[in-house]
Formats: sequence, structure tokens, C-alpha cells
Amino acid sequence: MRIGLVGLGRMGGFMARRWLRAGHDVVGYARHAETVNSLLADGSITAAATSLQDLVGQLAAPRVLWLMVPAAAVDATLDELVPLLSRGDVIVDGGNSYYVDDLRRSATLAEAGIDYLDCGTSGGVAGLERGYCLMIGGPAEAVGRLDPIFRALAPGVVAAPRTPGRSGDPDSAENGYLHCGPSGAGHFVKMIHNGIEYGVMAAYAEGLNILKHANAGRQEREVSAEVTPLRDPALYRYEIDIPAVTEVWRRGSVVASWLLDLAAEAFLRSGDLADFEGRVSDSGEGRWTSIAAIDVGAPAPVLTTALYERFMSRGEADFADKVLSAMRLGFGGHLEPKG
Amino acid sequence: MRIGLVGLGRMGGFMARRWLRAGHDVVGYARHAETVNSLLADGSITAAATSLQDLVGQLAAPRVLWLMVPAAAVDATLDELVPLLSRGDVIVDGGNSYYVDDLRRSATLAEAGIDYLDCGTSGGVAGLERGYCLMIGGPAEAVGRLDPIFRALAPGVVAAPRTPGRSGDPDSAENGYLHCGPSGAGHFVKMIHNGIEYGVMAAYAEGLNILKHANAGRQEREVSAEVTPLRDPALYRYEIDIPAVTEVWRRGSVVASWLLDLAAEAFLRSGDLADFEGRVSDSGEGRWTSIAAIDVGAPAPVLTTALYERFMSRGEADFADKVLSAMRLGFGGHLEPKG
Amino acid sequence: MRIGLVGLGRMGGFMARRWLRAGHDVVGYARHAETVNSLLADGSITAAATSLQDLVGQLAAPRVLWLMVPAAAVDATLDELVPLLSRGDVIVDGGNSYYVDDLRRSATLAEAGIDYLDCGTSGGVAGLERGYCLMIGGPAEAVGRLDPIFRALAPGVVAAPRTPGRSGDPDSAENGYLHCGPSGAGHFVKMIHNGIEYGVMAAYAEGLNILKHANAGRQEREVSAEVTPLRDPALYRYEIDIPAVTEVWRRGSVVASWLLDLAAEAFLRSGDLADFEGRVSDSGEGRWTSIAAIDVGAPAPVLTTALYERFMSRGEADFADKVLSAMRLGFGGHLEPKG
Amino acid sequence: MRIGLVGLGRMGGFMARRWLRAGHDVVGYARHAETVNSLLADGSITAAATSLQDLVGQLAAPRVLWLMVPAAAVDATLDELVPLLSRGDVIVDGGNSYYVDDLRRSATLAEAGIDYLDCGTSGGVAGLERGYCLMIGGPAEAVGRLDPIFRALAPGVVAAPRTPGRSGDPDSAENGYLHCGPSGAGHFVKMIHNGIEYGVMAAYAEGLNILKHANAGRQEREVSAEVTPLRDPALYRYEIDIPAVTEVWRRGSVVASWLLDLAAEAFLRSGDLADFEGRVSDSGEGRWTSIAAIDVGAPAPVLTTALYERFMSRGEADFADKVLSAMRLGFGGHLEPKG
Repeated sequence: MRIGLVGLGRMGGFMARRWLRAGHDVVGYARHAETVNSLLADGSITAAATSLQDLVGQLAAPRVLWLMVPAAAVDATLDELVPLLSRGDVIVDGGNSYYVDDLRRSATLAEAGIDYLDCGTSGGVAGLERGYCLMIGGPAEAVGRLDPIFRALAPGVVAAPRTPGRSGDPDSAENGYLHCGPSGAGHFVKMIHNGIEYGVMAAYAEGLNILKHANAGRQEREVSAEVTPLRDPALYRYEIDIPAVTEVWRRGSVVASWLLDLAAEAFLRSGDLADFEGRVSDSGEGRWTSIAAIDVGAPAPVLTTALYERFMSRGEADFADKVLSAMRLGFGGHLEPKG
Repeated sequence: MRIGLVGLGRMGGFMARRWLRAGHDVVGYARHAETVNSLLADGSITAAATSLQDLVGQLAAPRVLWLMVPAAAVDATLDELVPLLSRGDVIVDGGNSYYVDDLRRSATLAEAGIDYLDCGTSGGVAGLERGYCLMIGGPAEAVGRLDPIFRALAPGVVAAPRTPGRSGDPDSAENGYLHCGPSGAGHFVKMIHNGIEYGVMAAYAEGLNILKHANAGRQEREVSAEVTPLRDPALYRYEIDIPAVTEVWRRGSVVASWLLDLAAEAFLRSGDLADFEGRVSDSGEGRWTSIAAIDVGAPAPVLTTALYERFMSRGEADFADKVLSAMRLGFGGHLEPKG
Repeated sequence: MRIGLVGLGRMGGFMARRWLRAGHDVVGYARHAETVNSLLADGSITAAATSLQDLVGQLAAPRVLWLMVPAAAVDATLDELVPLLSRGDVIVDGGNSYYVDDLRRSATLAEAGIDYLDCGTSGGVAGLERGYCLMIGGPAEAVGRLDPIFRALAPGVVAAPRTPGRSGDPDSAENGYLHCGPSGAGHFVKMIHNGIEYGVMAAYAEGLNILKHANAGRQEREVSAEVTPLRDPALYRYEIDIPAVTEVWRRGSVVASWLLDLAAEAFLRSGDLADFEGRVSDSGEGRWTSIAAIDVGAPAPVLTTALYERFMSRGEADFADKVLSAMRLGFGGHLEPKG
Repeated sequence: MRIGLVGLGRMGGFMARRWLRAGHDVVGYARHAETVNSLLADGSITAAATSLQDLVGQLAAPRVLWLMVPAAAVDATLDELVPLLSRGDVIVDGGNSYYVDDLRRSATLAEAGIDYLDCGTSGGVAGLERGYCLMIGGPAEAVGRLDPIFRALAPGVVAAPRTPGRSGDPDSAENGYLHCGPSGAGHFVKMIHNGIEYGVMAAYAEGLNILKHANAGRQEREVSAEVTPLRDPALYRYEIDIPAVTEVWRRGSVVASWLLDLAAEAFLRSGDLADFEGRVSDSGEGRWTSIAAIDVGAPAPVLTTALYERFMSRGEADFADKVLSAMRLGFGGHLEPKG
């Protein structure tokens, strides 16, 4: 099939290459002409477009347009793109849009006879080789029509051992892509995926941090009414080789995972992670997951606390901490030690 | 009654004064002679002792000894004090000992015919005027014998309106002191009291911190795949007068409390709490509360998270945060922005 | 002043009585005529209205309308009420509206020349006697004009000792009511107030629950690979008198508060709280507080976890728990014991 | 090598078979003779022992004894076993002992010239085929001597792709076993491993539970002051096929893991997990992880909350919930609806 791809960042570029490998054609457009030309030059795309109008012109109706732009840029792109399209065309938003926006957009586009699919995409920079896990929302007919396009991106059943009990022809989920439901369902499932990701990452991070502190009993501490001494310092005199621990857990253990693989790789590069400041960003999905949990009344303290830990890593609890210190001074005359 | 008081810090000194006001005698001892002499000079104690031996010598059997020393110093004090005592004497540990230590000490002292009472004491630096809330553990007979001493420290029923439904002679709990059970029960209840205190303080601190951030919509933020922009900045354009809020909540609201009174007082002195660094200490009780919760299988996520927030305020999550950043770089190519 | 009061439930009825006591007039309207007549009969209101139209007719412009209806009924009430009003009239929403709705409503009403004030009200069923803590948002001019009405509801400075450092004429906050900022600010502050309330309540509940479990060492437990036995049962053999503990903490302790007073009162009625099922409701403010925290990036794990505990009390984690059991069976062959 | 194996439950039996496959000899002993005979009959062990004395007699000094018994049974086993041993023998505790016990035991055994190794073992019932991830503590000399025994249990480097950047001969960690440090270090690392496991499992469980609730907008809810209606029910009208979602995430996604594989397998058997009651057990490691975090001052709110969720799944928050309901009745007159 022939795909019009808008947005040629790392994700877009890699996806284009997977499509070409699978025999599809990709006409690429990005705001910066150099980006487009560079991808054309290295064979990542079939043809280059100089504008959205040019892009649309190079596609025959019914067209397939795939957006791979920042979530905040989707509406502006649609404003410019939609007037150029015809009834029966389909737009796939493959980025990280909030599913609430999908609901609005799909309703608007439906009035113009254009299908809007939301496609949550996981895989990151490794997706070129590993394939992308796709979570898709929108009308079943349009999703079915684009099946070859989704299939080309997905990892395929060979990417993991089949779940015991499964046999016969692998279904779409086993191939790594899934039609999750009507409009918004794809990004909804992707949102929860990322919410889980935050929690899983926090579990590893907290656990490894305890290992880092396993030598607490070696450090001298003063005795005072303010600071609790370790009751039994002899229990905490280990110097754990954390890089080796992340490696050993990769094989045979219950906590083996791709995220652990990545941790082991990072620790191999730098055993103390000195390159990192520890100010952890968060994108929207972690926040939206918690908001959804609150809205529907599903308890998610682990996921939300994982999100809040990222806020804290950026100093956003500082004022709260000062309030605590101020109260402590009030009732106990405790003036917290400076730095 | 005549009380031998070991430890004349702020808490000990104030307690001595409350005893004298109630007609008791206090022989005081502290490691530093100046401390003792100064309290004698200002009328806080009846008589001064130059050593534990001198202290014991100034008391007639059966003696009452009250310890007001740091938890970490109790065992050393007992080692020196106990050989000087006689059967029938009683020792009260009025500090913040771990109740597990009380169990051990009381068993040892019982062999020598000496009663050991554990007395959790709340009230802080305001206790001189407000009185101290006392939570007492140990043999009922000994607790009963010392009733006048406990009563003199406690706030008395007038300190708060009687609970609707209560009438007649106020019981001990209404007067602000309670025999909680056998050895250790006093410090156990005090431990939980402080655990609750951590949770309550955290609730105020987190809530006020959200108020502090209520102007988030006024700040410019960049649009990128890394940073989620506020969906609707118009919802967060408030500049809340937090000192005034803490004051208004003191009257009529559901969250009125003594801790809130202290917050209002601190904000009156400094609206932005600039004197505080926000590195929040924790003493043992908050930790022991969570350990007890874990041991007995009682879920306490609010109390334990409040404790962990104090650890975080002191930078103890830094390594965990670096692990998160390292993983993010691994799957997403996200290099966290520096500072 | 003369106030048109819409909504005569317990809150509305009590507020009317406080206004009358302070010399104001109240024309009351409620959907059920019996409610209105009953309040007129017992002297809670000055005059009765049979419809919104009748109500408005009994007020002279510029009118003051006070709504005390469920948050979900405010918009319908406004739809009917506003067409009856004139430029210069003012409407106060004294219920628990989401501040986001205030922003929308105030903008709409401003076009009609009508001021809309949002007034968060804390005090519950005790407010008739204790007074109500008021958090007000909207244009300063309108707030100032209604000052006598707010003042009459508020507890007044005598309701609590003045904060040390305050002197001279008490300001509005000291009297128990506060203009928090432009439209929405009142309900925003009330929302955070309730969010804090959830956290404070959870802290007490968790702490008392640990006390309840303090006898865990008295119970026999089987030894197996599945259930961890208590390492030292002798540490948990207390039978704590929890009603007495809540009473003793009311005087002199750091955790004294009005919520604790209420707990002591409940325990006096029933020591084991057998009347309660423990399915805890939540109204909107607790949820909105967490959503605000997430939006502005302010970490609030204690407040949000307190909210989630309420969801869990209603069985909303059941499916999550089954997922855990299913995974445990998968890797460990652990079949969870039934009931 | 020749191994004396004490404990022939599922874990022990599987490990014996892996040793035999690798060419080692295993003399097996268990309390029930049928167990021993059955394993001998199916070729899982080389020889059967009828008592610990018989077991020791069938081994030549220096002996290797491997314990695979419940943590609570280790001390009793050692009491009986150690008098039968000679200087230079080595005992490996391959179960889930608390590392604090390892420290005590290794010190005692060292006096008798016997090496005690602690070996944390992950892999569960799948270990026979996948191999076991081993975390080992104790003297380096003894660990080195038993290298072939550990190596035979471990999965080997082929069990996962090598971490990018590693080359040459795989080290021990890459083969799936690691000497983590002196006595206790093995079980310490295993303890943290399980603590992480709790957090990771909770992340999946919470996320899937939100998906389960994604149809909340389809359910009718009453409008009242007590129950917050969904602001926008149209946002939550998805019926997500959760079994399919767990399958699709297995390939290419960031949250792929062995635990997710197990979830997918469970959902394939029963889409609604109706076989499970959702009362989730916890063994000691999750608790000990949190206690270690508290002791050393390393914040672990995600891990500890995951633990507490298991307590809650067993009804251990019921009393806390009643306290909340009682307070709500106190200030708001809210009587929680029954069931």
C-alpha cells in the first residue's frame, strides 16, 4: 500500500523503513526539507513531499495518511490537512495523543466522511529492529482495510514464544497489534500501558536504591534525639555490585523484563549512572492514567505514586517539605539541620 | 510525692516545673552541672543532685525515678542507676524509647524487684502550659501508685470540651493520661500516635503545596514530546494567600487541629517559610509504626508514604531517580534535561 | 440584609437560622413545599417562596441569591433562575461545585451583568453552633458587598485562640471567612481543604487499625511457605482500648483535632464501630484535588492514596487482586487459599 | 559432585533433576519416605536417604549439603544436621530465609568450621526448564568450590540475548548466578528481588483493573450529594478485551516481561479469572524489603504500597474503613450506604 507519512522524527523514520522493507510505499513529509531529503537519500522513504498539499497530491484516493507528530501538534496538522482530503480517506494518529482528543477529532472527521484511527505505538528507538506493539482504536472497517500496514510495523508472532495453550494461526494480538475498540480505545490502552510502565520502572528503581543503601551500617551516625541511629548496623554492611545484580536477574528470575535489560545495559556503560542528574520527565500518559483511575474509581496507588516520584525528582515537593519543617519547629522546637 | 528526675533538657525542665506547681518535690540530675544549677536557681526543681548516686541518696525508698533522656542513652543510664536502687523502687522512662526495648528492660528489672514503666509523652515545647498527654505501660499497681505524678503532668479535663455523652467524674483518659496496658504498651501507643502525626502533617503539607502550584497556568511552558503542557492553563491561574488560608481553616472547618494552628503561626512569621531548607528529619516512632504495620499485616500506605516523603526530602531517592532516567534513555532516547 | 435562599436541606436550614440570629432576613425556597413550610413554622426563615419566580419577586434589586443545592443540580437551577434576575444581582453558590464549573458559570453570568460568587463551606452538621468556615471566590466588589452575610455564617474570632503574633482588629480570615481570589478560588481552596481532610482521616484510620492489630501475636498461625509467621509474637500481645486512646489524645497531644474529637465520640457510642460496614463514600473534592495535583505537577501521594483506600473499601480492587493471584499461580504454583 | 539434598518438594525435586542432567549425584532426603522413594523411582535423585544421619553417611567429607525446606524449618533442620557434620563441610540454604537469620547461622557454624552459604533462588515452577537465577552469599572460597553446582542450576548465558557491550567469556552473572557478598548477601539480594516483584505485579494489576473499569460510563449512577457522578460518561464507554491486551503487549512493547507472559497465560485459561478469589498471600521477602528500606532510609513507597495492597485484599483494612465511616457520620451526617 501507499502511505502518506507526516512527521519524520526518529519514530517516523524508523517506521517508514519497516514499511519499505515490507513492500509498502511511503511518501514522507516533514516541516524541515532537510529531514525529508535526508530520509529520501538513505532510502527510508519512497518519495518526498514539499508540503502537505504536495503530499496529498502524491496519493490516490482513498488515501492513507499517518501522523507521527508531537501530541501538541496534531490539531494544527489536521486543520491544514483535512481540507485537502476526500471522503473515504483515512488518517492514523500514531503518536501519543490523549484519547479524549481522539474522540473529538474522530467525531469531527466523521462528518467529512474521513476515518480517524488512533494508534498507540510502543517500542521506542528499538522498534526498527524489534517491531512496534500497536494498540488501535476506530471503526473496524477502516482498521481492517489498513491491516497490511499495521502488520508490517508489528513484531510478528516470532518475537516471543507462543503463550502455552495457543495454537493454529496466530491472531492479530499474537502478531503484536490489536484493534482495541472504537475511537480512542487504542490510545486509551496505550495510556494504561505507559501508566504500568511508570509503575514497573519505579519498582526497579526503588529496589535498586535499597541495594545501594545496603551499606548504611558502615557509615558513622551521630546519636541525638533528632536522628534515629540504625538499631543494628551489622545488618547493613553490604557493598552490592548493582550492575552485576541487574545482569543476573535477566536470566531465570521472576523479574526479568525488557526494562531490566535496559537497566543492565545502562549500568554496563556506567556503574554509578553518573551521567544522569535524576530529574525525571513525565509525558502525558502517566498523568492521564491516574486521572482515568480517579474518574472510574479504580484504585491505582502504585501507578500514581510512581508518577508523583517523578514530580519529586524535579523538586516539586520542596514547599511541602518546608511546611513539615515549620510544623516540627512549632511543636518540638526541632530546627532541621541545614544541608 | 518526691521524684528523682534524670535528664533536664527542655522537656525535663518543663515537666519538673509542672510537678512543683502541683506540690510535688523534684530532685534533678543532669550530666552538666550548670544545667542542674540553672534549673535550681530558677525554681524549676526542689533540689539538685551531683551524680546518680547523690540523686538516689536524696530519695527515700520506695523511690520514684523518672528518666527524660534520649532513647539511645536509656540503657547506659539504667546500667549505672539500677545497682543503686532497692526492691520496690520504680523507674519511669518518659522519653521516646522503642517499646521493644521496654519489654526487655522491664523483664530484667522485674528480676531485681524494680518496676519499670514506659510513658509516652506528647506535647512538645508547649507542654509546660498545655500539659502533656501521657500514654503509660507497665504493671497496674505501680501505675496506680504514681497516679498523682501522672495527673500533675496531664492537661486535665478542662483542656478540651467533654466528648458528648460523657458525664460524671472524668476518667483518667479524659484527664489526658492513660494506662494503656502491660510493659511497652505506653510507648507502643505513643509510637502509633507519632505515626499518625507524620500522616496528618503530610496531608497538610501536600495540600498546601498544591495551593502553591495553583498558579501553574501563569507560567510559560515549552511544547515538546518530553514535557506535557497543561491542557487548560486557564484553570490554574490563582495566587492563593496560603498564610491566610491556614488561618481561616482554624475556625469552623473540618481540618482544624493543633498542627494547623502551628502552621498558621509559622506562616505568620514568614509567608514563604524561607527559613527552612526542607530537609525533614524523622525520629524513630514513624519508622517503628510502619514496621509494626508490616509485622501485623495492617495496611498503612498513608503513614508509610509520609515517612518516605521525609527520606526523599533529604535526597535519599537520588539513585532511584537516576535509574529511571537511565531506563528512559534506553527505550526512548530521552536524555533528561539537566537542572 | 435580605437573602434569597434556594435549597433548604440540613445545611441550608442551619445557615438560614444563623442569618436570622444575626438580624438578616431569609426568603426560603425548596422543591418540596413541606420543607419550606416546616422551616417557616420553626422560625428558621423569614418568609417562604413557592417558586423561584416567587422567590425573586420577594427580593428587591440588587438581589442576593444563595444556592445550597447538590453540585449536580446547580446548572439546572441557574437555567431557571437567571432569566428572572436583573443586572447587579449576585448569586452565591454555597455548595460543593467543582471550581471548573464556577469559571464557566461566572463568565456566562458576567455577560448578563450578574455576579457569581463561589463559596466553599466547611463545618458540616455542627455548623449551626460552631459556625461555618467560608472560602470565597469572585469579584472583590461583590464579595465586599456581601460581607455582613458571610460574617454572620462564620465562627468569628472567638472560636479559637488567636494565633500568637496576631493583635489588633481581627481580619476576615481570623473571623473564619476569606476571599481567596477570583472566580473559582473559593471552591478551589475548599477542594484542597477536603483533599487534606481525606489524608488526615486516613492517617487516623490507619494508625488506629494498627492498634487494633496489636494483639496479632496472640493468634495462632500455621507455619507454611505461603504465610509468613510473626518472627516474634511476644511483641504483639496488646489489647489496646482504642476508645480510651482516642479520648486521651484529645488533650495535650500533637494529633488533637476536631476529627479526632468526632472519632472519640463515635467510639463512645460503639467501641467496635459495629454499626458501620466500612464501605466509604467519596464526594468529588477528594478526586478533584488529586486531579489538580497531577495537572500542576505537585506530588500528593498521601492525599491520593487516601482517596484510593476509599475505592478499595468498596471492593474496586477485586479484579486487580485476582490478577495478582493469577500471576502467583503462574510462577509459583501458589493457589491462594479460599476465604 | 555429590550433593546431599534435604527437602524434596517441587523446588527441591526439580533442582535435583537439573543436577543429574549436568552429571552430578544427588542423595535425597525428605520427611516423608514416599516422597523420597517416588523421586528415586522417577530418576530425579541418585540415591535415597532414610534419615539425616543416613544422608550424611552417604556423603564423603568434605560434604555438600543443600537445604530446600521452608524458612521456618531451617533452624530445626540445622539443629539436627550440624552435629552429624565435620569441619570443612558446607551447607547451602537454598530456600527463602531472612538474611538476618543467615548472619546468625553462619557465625555459629563458622565456629564449628562449617561453611554456611545463603542462596536466593528465583524461577519458581518453571525453573526445571528455564533454570534458576541464583543469588549467593558467604565466603568466596566456599562459593568458588561449589561453582559447578551453582552453574548446573543456573539458566546459562543462552537464556537471553547478551547485553549490548558484553563480549568474550560470559561471567557468572551472565550465566545466571552471582556471588553477591558475604553471609546474608544472597538472601538480601533475593529479598529485594521479591520486593521488586511485588511492585511490578501491582503495576500490571492496577493498570489492568483500570482497563476493566473503562466501561464505567455505561453504568447508570444515581445523582446525590454522596456519590460523585462521572463528569463525562462518554469518556468511559470501552469494553476492553483484557486477555488480548496482555497478549499484544508481549511483543515489542516496553512492558513486556515474564510476569506479563504469565498473565497472558492465565487470561487465556479464564478471561475473567473467575477461579481466583483475590485474597493475595505474601511471603516474608516483600515485608523484609520494606523493613530494610525503612531501616536504611531509602524511600520505597511503590514497593511498600504493593505489599499493603495484599493486606487489603485480605480484608485487613476493614477496621480502618469503619473509622472513616464513623468520622464521616460525625461531621457530615453521612451514613454510608450498606453493601
